[in-house]
Amino acid sequence: MGKILEIARRAKKISYNLSTLSSSTKDGALKEMAKALIDNSEFIIEENNLDVETAEALGKDRAFIDRLRLDTARIEQMADGLLTIEALPDPIGSTISTWKRPNGLEIGQRRVPLGVVGIIYEARPNVTADVVGLCLKTGNAAILRGGSDAIHSNKAVIKVLWDAAKKVGIPHGAFSLIEDTSRKSAETLMKLNGLVDVLIPRGGAGLIQNVVENATIPIIETGVGNCHIYIDGQCDISMALEISMNAKVQRPGVCNAIETLLIDEKISNTFLPQIVESLEAEDVEIRGCEKAKKIVGCIEASEEDWHAEYLDYILAIKVVDGIEEAIAHINEYGTGHSEGIVTSNYFNAQKFLTEVDAAAVYVNASTRFTDGYEYGFGAEMGISTQKLHARGPMGLEALTTIKYVVSGQGQIRK
Amino acid sequence: MGKILEIARRAKKISYNLSTLSSSTKDGALKEMAKALIDNSEFIIEENNLDVETAEALGKDRAFIDRLRLDTARIEQMADGLLTIEALPDPIGSTISTWKRPNGLEIGQRRVPLGVVGIIYEARPNVTADVVGLCLKTGNAAILRGGSDAIHSNKAVIKVLWDAAKKVGIPHGAFSLIEDTSRKSAETLMKLNGLVDVLIPRGGAGLIQNVVENATIPIIETGVGNCHIYIDGQCDISMALEISMNAKVQRPGVCNAIETLLIDEKISNTFLPQIVESLEAEDVEIRGCEKAKKIVGCIEASEEDWHAEYLDYILAIKVVDGIEEAIAHINEYGTGHSEGIVTSNYFNAQKFLTEVDAAAVYVNASTRFTDGYEYGFGAEMGISTQKLHARGPMGLEALTTIKYVVSGQGQIRK
Repeated sequence: MGKILEIARRAKKISYNLSTLSSSTKDGALKEMAKALIDNSEFIIEENNLDVETAEALGKDRAFIDRLRLDTARIEQMADGLLTIEALPDPIGSTISTWKRPNGLEIGQRRVPLGVVGIIYEARPNVTADVVGLCLKTGNAAILRGGSDAIHSNKAVIKVLWDAAKKVGIPHGAFSLIEDTSRKSAETLMKLNGLVDVLIPRGGAGLIQNVVENATIPIIETGVGNCHIYIDGQCDISMALEISMNAKVQRPGVCNAIETLLIDEKISNTFLPQIVESLEAEDVEIRGCEKAKKIVGCIEASEEDWHAEYLDYILAIKVVDGIEEAIAHINEYGTGHSEGIVTSNYFNAQKFLTEVDAAAVYVNASTRFTDGYEYGFGAEMGISTQKLHARGPMGLEALTTIKYVVSGQGQIRK
Repeated sequence: MGKILEIARRAKKISYNLSTLSSSTKDGALKEMAKALIDNSEFIIEENNLDVETAEALGKDRAFIDRLRLDTARIEQMADGLLTIEALPDPIGSTISTWKRPNGLEIGQRRVPLGVVGIIYEARPNVTADVVGLCLKTGNAAILRGGSDAIHSNKAVIKVLWDAAKKVGIPHGAFSLIEDTSRKSAETLMKLNGLVDVLIPRGGAGLIQNVVENATIPIIETGVGNCHIYIDGQCDISMALEISMNAKVQRPGVCNAIETLLIDEKISNTFLPQIVESLEAEDVEIRGCEKAKKIVGCIEASEEDWHAEYLDYILAIKVVDGIEEAIAHINEYGTGHSEGIVTSNYFNAQKFLTEVDAAAVYVNASTRFTDGYEYGFGAEMGISTQKLHARGPMGLEALTTIKYVVSGQGQIRK
């Protein structure tokens, strides 16, 4: 693992230089990199094809290959992402607040880069450009460890980005791809205390669990979403139908889609048959509690269903005796990602927003909005489901920390 | 370890209630608890004596017994700490910022408790009251796992605080002491994913290293301080002497005291003999680089000395060829705690503040000021030396996270 150590040591060293790069240098590099992606899209697509062919030969499913494949449109999106990041204000170096102490010391909180940011991710080569762009804008050195399934694509994207970045004075080692995609390489990265300031795992539950259990460096847990919508007894039924359908079927394979629908029993006899009809029209399998089963005759849900993140055309449904039971269910089974209520009752809206423990809580809107772009952050490093440091969609600010800058005139402690 | 699991489950459950407690309930409890400490100081001192006697029988050193001992004055300080926390504004529930998206969604960032906060600490029973007070004010459930050396003291303090808190409606389980002080109990606590939201180790380097290596729940690393002061070639020599002495000898056993002094060679011939004279008058042992040894004839420092956190009357001294070498030395050997420069040169002050990578950087002031009280935070949970979530002295805000609260009128994602 000498190579990874070498990459990390270089990244640490170079991170001090990156922290002082001017905004114009960083923005100039982002523009060059966006242009280079477009100019070299043929090369990137050729390399990507090698990965796609391997995945097909291995019999990977269609969703997997869809995430893996790069075409002209996807590469344009990657370039647009870099330009969006370029257009955002530089968060680094601004002073958040200052105050003066009785002894005359002036204390300021200055926003600074984290230092070295590591990311372990799976077969989504577009993430490569997003991560490089976000880290560069925030003056962080980036160490990327992608999956073996996307290795040719990742190498091609990094080569194109680096050829562009070096032309405008970005120091060597500002971003590096670990080309060794073995399990061992990921495990080495997880334990580089003193060299890597934060590690972000981005991918499936298995990857994230592995990082949570084995990392000794600080991490930010992302993504696992067992999300719910609660349909309150007092609500606009057509809005409830539209939001529930959107949250389940608009894109079922993503973390902010819902897995369980909770329905107030006061309206279950009217609402349940309507939603089930709409869901079945979209081929969604229903697994209901005993009460739901009685009303619509679906499969009965087991304890496992309340815990499940299906990421598929399956929905668990539970009839509850009111908002208290709904909130208790969510706080017990939810993963702290995105939770919603559809209601026209003021007090229930307030209660839900206050008492549900999740990164994002919604009143009368689809949970599908939990996303850096939708929140106006321009791009995202992932969606944090932990409470430390960053919660919800992580944009530029999540890649910064603060430093206390204290100016004195000779003060000593008594 | 069933008992610990039971404590953690109860804490998790009660944390939802704590998050909605009114400020007046929390502040009322803090006042009652402060009063109870004073009213019961005799009982607390009696129980503390049991710990002190054991420590003496075990031959613990004077500094250890000093940290362990509670007397009337110490108990008054603990009560004052609670009253200081009571007087601070409640950070919970305030909305930090809100914005409206083009689709009409209103997104707000609301400050909320972390949930369940765990702390593993050593033989400082006064920490018990600080932690309970800070966690209660921020609506967090607290799980305290103190050291075996202070078990009688901790049990007594918790009993007194709880008897007071329950009278004013604080729910059972808001704060709990783990009475099992075995290594196993600490290790169980470190792995309670899903139940404990953050764990803060507070104590010596060994304790912190153990938590870093073994915890699977999010942690905040605290305290290890290999701090430096750099005396620039252009500076007020008497200020440099006063700050260096204060940073080394005012209280050598704490993390914000300096361990290495860096001196610009342009003034080493004049400054070094003066500082060494002052240090020797205070019985400080000097370990110098080759150049320093030539000037003042001290013991020669080894590579280990540059890494050492002595926490004692020992100081390493290195003569450097200017600010570049000073900054490089600090960024290589420092632990990212507190670093200072004494200079009258504007550009060197700016350069040091920008390029040194530490929680707190000082110009013309002692590093001893890195402290929650000195920064005006009222109290502190410890001093974070990591970059994630909190950096430097951790006050109330470090015990909070944010929640995105999104209000819609039926928005769905296209």
